[in-house]
Amino acid sequence: MQRVYLDNNATTMVDPKVKEAMEPFWSEKYGNPNSLHQFGIELRGRLRDALDQLYAGINASDEDDLVINGCASEGNNTVLQGIYHEVIRHSARDHIVTTSVEHPSVRATCNFLESLGVKITYLSVNEQGSIDLESVKEAVSDKTALVSVMWANNETGAIFPIKEIAEIARAKGALFHTDAVQAIGKIKVDAREVEADYLTFSGHKFHAPKGIGGLYIRSGAPKVRLIYGGEHMGGLRAGTVNAPLMIGMGLAMELAVESLPYEATTVRRLKDKLEDALLEIPDLFVVGDRDRRVPNTILASARGVEGESLLWDLNKNGVAASTGSACASEDLAANPILSAIGSDAELAHTAVRLSLSRFTTEAEIDYAIQIIPQAIKRLRDISVSYAGGKK
Amino acid sequence: MQRVYLDNNATTMVDPKVKEAMEPFWSEKYGNPNSLHQFGIELRGRLRDALDQLYAGINASDEDDLVINGCASEGNNTVLQGIYHEVIRHSARDHIVTTSVEHPSVRATCNFLESLGVKITYLSVNEQGSIDLESVKEAVSDKTALVSVMWANNETGAIFPIKEIAEIARAKGALFHTDAVQAIGKIKVDAREVEADYLTFSGHKFHAPKGIGGLYIRSGAPKVRLIYGGEHMGGLRAGTVNAPLMIGMGLAMELAVESLPYEATTVRRLKDKLEDALLEIPDLFVVGDRDRRVPNTILASARGVEGESLLWDLNKNGVAASTGSACASEDLAANPILSAIGSDAELAHTAVRLSLSRFTTEAEIDYAIQIIPQAIKRLRDISVSYAGGKK
Repeated sequence: MQRVYLDNNATTMVDPKVKEAMEPFWSEKYGNPNSLHQFGIELRGRLRDALDQLYAGINASDEDDLVINGCASEGNNTVLQGIYHEVIRHSARDHIVTTSVEHPSVRATCNFLESLGVKITYLSVNEQGSIDLESVKEAVSDKTALVSVMWANNETGAIFPIKEIAEIARAKGALFHTDAVQAIGKIKVDAREVEADYLTFSGHKFHAPKGIGGLYIRSGAPKVRLIYGGEHMGGLRAGTVNAPLMIGMGLAMELAVESLPYEATTVRRLKDKLEDALLEIPDLFVVGDRDRRVPNTILASARGVEGESLLWDLNKNGVAASTGSACASEDLAANPILSAIGSDAELAHTAVRLSLSRFTTEAEIDYAIQIIPQAIKRLRDISVSYAGGKK
Repeated sequence: MQRVYLDNNATTMVDPKVKEAMEPFWSEKYGNPNSLHQFGIELRGRLRDALDQLYAGINASDEDDLVINGCASEGNNTVLQGIYHEVIRHSARDHIVTTSVEHPSVRATCNFLESLGVKITYLSVNEQGSIDLESVKEAVSDKTALVSVMWANNETGAIFPIKEIAEIARAKGALFHTDAVQAIGKIKVDAREVEADYLTFSGHKFHAPKGIGGLYIRSGAPKVRLIYGGEHMGGLRAGTVNAPLMIGMGLAMELAVESLPYEATTVRRLKDKLEDALLEIPDLFVVGDRDRRVPNTILASARGVEGESLLWDLNKNGVAASTGSACASEDLAANPILSAIGSDAELAHTAVRLSLSRFTTEAEIDYAIQIIPQAIKRLRDISVSYAGGKK
């Protein structure tokens, strides 16, 4: 059976070139780069190259820190818990502004900080799944320590106006963090241009392996840390430097940036082709203006079709999709984005996310275009609530 | 030139079998195991097997938690910061007992907790590099929340009496954590037998890749967490499940346990052969009774020979060693263990650690036996302080 992977916002295939680049570093060049002997020293040039690729990929400047860590969940925790210790505990600023549609690693950490007495404002999204700047202006005050808003949403692909949000934060003396996990490799990510103080990303969302990520800290922003210990990463993150994965992520970043024109044209075209075909299905809705989304993501809701049932049917036919964040997908609750944008409860249970990558082929999209409408028809035929098809 | 790697306490070669086991999970079976489609579901059996291998490897019982994380630095931070939030903040217990020779990830986190008002007792080691039980009894009181003592020391290889220390902690109602990083794969590690509440380990010290580790939490012990977010690992550690590295670490654990008899015989014999040869050099000392050390580690001090100079000379001749923890080895300070056991300042600058693995061959040890004494002689010949050789 054909297998079509349309769940690239959950995790991606390791690019075969990345796999090959890591190859010598498992069982041959396996030293600890901090060692004072050849097994460690021989890695240092390659690690510097990897760092250069990562700095270049997000346009960090040499004075900024780029802390290599284990994943974006770690990076997001480092920023939020770090701001608590570095700023909130020692100042009159006891407030964080974020959104109701951040990744669970931001939302759960904010809940934890609330238990420590931090005040959190969760901004809602509008019906396009985006953030109104007015709501940010209203929320941010001179009591705000940090504003944390994702660059692009994992479920809808909506691109948030983070440059403007960063400016609002800065005007009130607050720091700005963006979770750029879903932006890297899909659209241009320039940390300096948006003037973010902190930016987090995760390798496995752009064809590097799982278990490696990065935290950008703008020069002059408070140094945040979560894992204390040895003096790795300028003392900002303990743990033996992960040479193979760091070398892999460096190359993956370079390839991701090189592929941006391909994302903007071919991936976008394939995504639009799929989206256009879906929109021919009656009572099917796609969230958000397609020009304000990353080029690879569709969040579609088909009235009368429960999301998990659709996934099940698609999976039987070889198409892999998601009802939303895989970080919460064992939990059969309503899609939080659709709830957030004010969909009715029935529609909120019908969302299915389809996310492409540069490895998605036209043949795969053509196959999906054949499979998905059939699945929706089958499920509507047996639905007790849906009358649309039976008129 | 021959290359002999005697720095296995810093990091190890990935076992080629482990590398092979991870192979399909980079670019073929790359799904997120939490997904509700084939790309995720197909991993679940293999991940359950990996967990079984890990549970069996440390003799955890099914009711215990085994949280897979990024490294032991993360694990140690999770225990210490977690106990602060789960116990210390809500009780009259505001005290932690640890030793002055723990890994930097324990020591630095304790320093951080001191800044939050936690009282820390750092126990010293005796001249064997071990911990006297009397000093533990004196330190632990009904104000103690946690006792954290490593299973085996990274620099000397000394095995600490942790079963007895755990008992002392328990008698006072304190929790017990052991950093077992340097014990796994070298001696039998049985979490249940020592009755540890928490136990941390790191894959890359037993021939798994860097970037993966484990935190054992005994059933009934407070659930500690550091990285908040998705409901992975029973809600105890967010971040996408790292299937390839977890599968690799599972196999590495199984192989490590299978190799224990080989460690106790062949690795021990090779280590003893090297140690015996070194002890023939005048004014050379090895720390600790060899029956109370893990079988692979020698910490040797040669009077008049600065540790870094010796490393340099050895490295020129293809032998990789360390002056102590690689986590601090760019820092040319006195060896903290030798300072801790009361060596004079001169000797504390002369320590060199030699650590073998099951991949170390007899030919490599014979080569090291030829190289190391020559290097020591060369350096003593040019030493201004050492008179021993010039009598």
